[in-house]
Amino acid sequence: MSIFTLTTDFGTQDGYVGAIKGYLLSQHPQATIIDISHDIEPHNIHQGAECIARAYHQYPSASIHIVVVDPGVGSTRLALAVNTGKHWFVSPDNGVLSEILKSHPNSQIYELHSETPWWRKNTSFDGLFLFAPAAAQIARGQSMDLLGTPIRDPVIYDTPEIEIDQTTGELTCQVTSFDRFGNAITNLSLAIYNTCKLEETKIYLRSEILPLRRFYGEQCTSTPFAIFNSDNKLEVSLNQKSVRRILHLNLGDSLLLKPIKPLDDAKQISS
Amino acid sequence: MSIFTLTTDFGTQDGYVGAIKGYLLSQHPQATIIDISHDIEPHNIHQGAECIARAYHQYPSASIHIVVVDPGVGSTRLALAVNTGKHWFVSPDNGVLSEILKSHPNSQIYELHSETPWWRKNTSFDGLFLFAPAAAQIARGQSMDLLGTPIRDPVIYDTPEIEIDQTTGELTCQVTSFDRFGNAITNLSLAIYNTCKLEETKIYLRSEILPLRRFYGEQCTSTPFAIFNSDNKLEVSLNQKSVRRILHLNLGDSLLLKPIKPLDDAKQISS
Amino acid sequence: MSIFTLTTDFGTQDGYVGAIKGYLLSQHPQATIIDISHDIEPHNIHQGAECIARAYHQYPSASIHIVVVDPGVGSTRLALAVNTGKHWFVSPDNGVLSEILKSHPNSQIYELHSETPWWRKNTSFDGLFLFAPAAAQIARGQSMDLLGTPIRDPVIYDTPEIEIDQTTGELTCQVTSFDRFGNAITNLSLAIYNTCKLEETKIYLRSEILPLRRFYGEQCTSTPFAIFNSDNKLEVSLNQKSVRRILHLNLGDSLLLKPIKPLDDAKQISS
Repeated sequence: MSIFTLTTDFGTQDGYVGAIKGYLLSQHPQATIIDISHDIEPHNIHQGAECIARAYHQYPSASIHIVVVDPGVGSTRLALAVNTGKHWFVSPDNGVLSEILKSHPNSQIYELHSETPWWRKNTSFDGLFLFAPAAAQIARGQSMDLLGTPIRDPVIYDTPEIEIDQTTGELTCQVTSFDRFGNAITNLSLAIYNTCKLEETKIYLRSEILPLRRFYGEQCTSTPFAIFNSDNKLEVSLNQKSVRRILHLNLGDSLLLKPIKPLDDAKQISS
Repeated sequence: MSIFTLTTDFGTQDGYVGAIKGYLLSQHPQATIIDISHDIEPHNIHQGAECIARAYHQYPSASIHIVVVDPGVGSTRLALAVNTGKHWFVSPDNGVLSEILKSHPNSQIYELHSETPWWRKNTSFDGLFLFAPAAAQIARGQSMDLLGTPIRDPVIYDTPEIEIDQTTGELTCQVTSFDRFGNAITNLSLAIYNTCKLEETKIYLRSEILPLRRFYGEQCTSTPFAIFNSDNKLEVSLNQKSVRRILHLNLGDSLLLKPIKPLDDAKQISS
Repeated sequence: MSIFTLTTDFGTQDGYVGAIKGYLLSQHPQATIIDISHDIEPHNIHQGAECIARAYHQYPSASIHIVVVDPGVGSTRLALAVNTGKHWFVSPDNGVLSEILKSHPNSQIYELHSETPWWRKNTSFDGLFLFAPAAAQIARGQSMDLLGTPIRDPVIYDTPEIEIDQTTGELTCQVTSFDRFGNAITNLSLAIYNTCKLEETKIYLRSEILPLRRFYGEQCTSTPFAIFNSDNKLEVSLNQKSVRRILHLNLGDSLLLKPIKPLDDAKQISS
C-alpha cells in the first residue's frame, strides 16, 4: 500500500489540492494520502523546505513525498524526482528539497521528462498534471528510464553561515525562520555549540543577555530566553508569547555569543 | 471501500468537522475520508461551488462528496442528493452544486426527506445530523425511495455573461473569483476565445494592455499579464505577487478585448 | 485497525504535525489518522478542550485521541493517558481534557512515566517524542503498568457558573466562547433552561431584547437573535454575519433572562 504525502503552498479553498488527492486515489485506490501542509506561505521555498525536512524522516520506507511550492510553475525550471534510498520526492527544481539533498548527498536525482505517456510538462498546474502522475508512476515501480534522466546539479539554496571572530572568540548566528508560535529559529546547531565549547559564552540579542533554558515551560517570567529546540537549533523564545511580534524580530537578525572570559591561546576556536 | 470527501466553510477549530469524520468512520470503518477544504469563506457559496467543481472529477467512481456551505442551515431550504451517474453529492439546495449541475444536466436530483430512520432535518448542524447520515446511507446502497424524492429544479446560481459588441467586435468579460495567490479569474473560457478568434485582439485592464502569456513563470518583470489557467479560464496574474492586492482588483472588474484591426463584415463576430 | 485523531495548536506549516503522522504510520502502517484540528489558537486550552469535546464521541470505540495544546511543554506539568471505557486520550495535564473528564467522572486516569523504552519526557516537542509514542503503545494494547501510574486529580479548569437571583427570578449567563462564524456561545444549557421553565422570560443582551429562534435561517432581518445550538447551549447569532464583530462582543459578556411576569411563590426558581 503506497503512502503519498503532500506539502504545498496551495491552501485548500481553491480545490487544487482536492483534485490532486482525487487523482492519486483514482490511480491507487488503496493509497494512504497524508496532508503535511498546504499552508506554506505562497512562494516561500525556504518554509516549504524546512517543513518537509522536519517531517519526512518519520515516514515508512518507500513513502513518496510530493512537495510543490513553485513560483516558476510553467517556466523552464526543471522538475525533479529524488530517491534518497529510503524515500522518494517529486518537486520543482527550485531549492525546495535543499534540506533533503544536503542530508542525503548520495541521492539519485532525476530530471523528469517533459513528456511521457502520463504527463506533459509546462502547464499552469504542474501539481496535478506533472508531479502527481510522476508520483503515481513511481508508486507503481515504473522504470526510471521512462520517467526521467539522471542529473547531478539540482538547485540547493544557500544558507547563511555562522561567523566566528578568531581574535575575540565571538560567534554570530542569525534568525533564519519563525515558527507558528513566533519563536525565532537561528542557524546555530547544538553540534557546533558543543564543538566550539560555547557553554562559556553569554548570548546577546541586541544589548540584552538571554538566559539559556532547557525547557519552554521552565521560564515563567516575561523575559525572552534562548533554547535548543527539537531540531537542535538555537532559538529565541518567550513564555506563551510570540517573541517575533513582541521584540519586532526579523529574518537575518543576529545573535552574538561572547566568551565570558577573554580567550587564551589554548582555547582559541578554530572554525 | 467507500470514499467520502468533505468541502465546508466550517474551519476545523470548533470540532464540527471532526465530529462528522467520526460519524462517517463509525458507520463505515473502512472508509477513506478526504478533506477537500474546510477553509471556504463563511457563507461563500460561489467559492464552495468552484472548489468542489475543480476537484470532484478526479475522484474514483461512486465517491460521495459532502458539500456544506449553508447560510440557511435550519431554514426551509431543501437538502439535496445528486447522482451524476459517476459521483454522488449531498448538499443544501442553495447553489453550491451549480457548477456540477451545469456540467451534468442529466443528473438524478433528489430532495432528501425531512425525516427518516437515520436523520431529522432542521437542526442547527445539518452537516452532522442530516448530510453525513444521508451520505452514509447512500454508501450502503440504500434505496433512494427511502432517502428522498426526485426533483427537477434545484437552485443554480446565475453567472455573469460575457458581452460582445456586434458593431465594434469588442468583448467584455469580468473578474468572477480570486485564488489563494491573488490571481483574478474571469468568466472568459478558452473555448469562447478560440471560437471568436480573439487572438487578434488586445486585452485591456482599465487603460493598460495586458500581454497574453502561456506560463506563469515566463514573465519575469513586474508587470501584470493575462493567461489561460488550468481551468481554461482567462485570468490576470503577476509574477509571484498578488495582482488582486497590488492593482486593488474587485469582483466584477471588467477586461476589454479590442480587435487590433477594425472589423470588416466577413469577420464580424456572432455571439 | 487503529484510529488516531489529532487535535493541536501546531498549525501545519512548520512540519511538526507531519512528523507525528509519519511516526504513527511507521508504528501502525494500517492506522487511520484523522486531523480534527491543528488550528486551535496557540496556547488556547479552552478552545482545544471544546473542540475535542464536540468531536470524540462520534468516533468508534477504542479510538485514540491525541490532544496537544501545551503552553507548558517541557515543564513539570504531568502527561496524561485517560481511558473513558470507550475512548483513549493522551494529552498534557493542563485542563485540555476538562470537558471529557467532567463527562466521564469514572475514567481511568494515568500519569505517563517520565521515561520508558519508547519515550523520554521533557523535550521541547512532547507531541512527537512523548504523546505519539504513548498513543502507539496504547494501540498495541501495551500493559498500562509499563506506561503510567494511576492518578486521581487531573487538572480540570473552572467554568463560570450561571447566576440566579432568587428574589427576582432573573438568570445571568455569559459568553464563554465564539465559533468560526462569530456566534457567541454561552454557558446556559437547554437542560437548565427547561428545568427552570425559562420560556416565560425575555432575553436581554445589554438593553436589547433578543428573540429566541429555532433555526439560524428563520431570521431574515439584520437583528441579532438567541438560539440553542447543536450542543444545546444558548448562543447569540446574526443571520449570515458575525455577531461577535458587529456587536463587539467579548468573552464574559453577560445575557440576562428576566421573567415576563413577576414571580409568585409557587414559581420561584430553586437553583
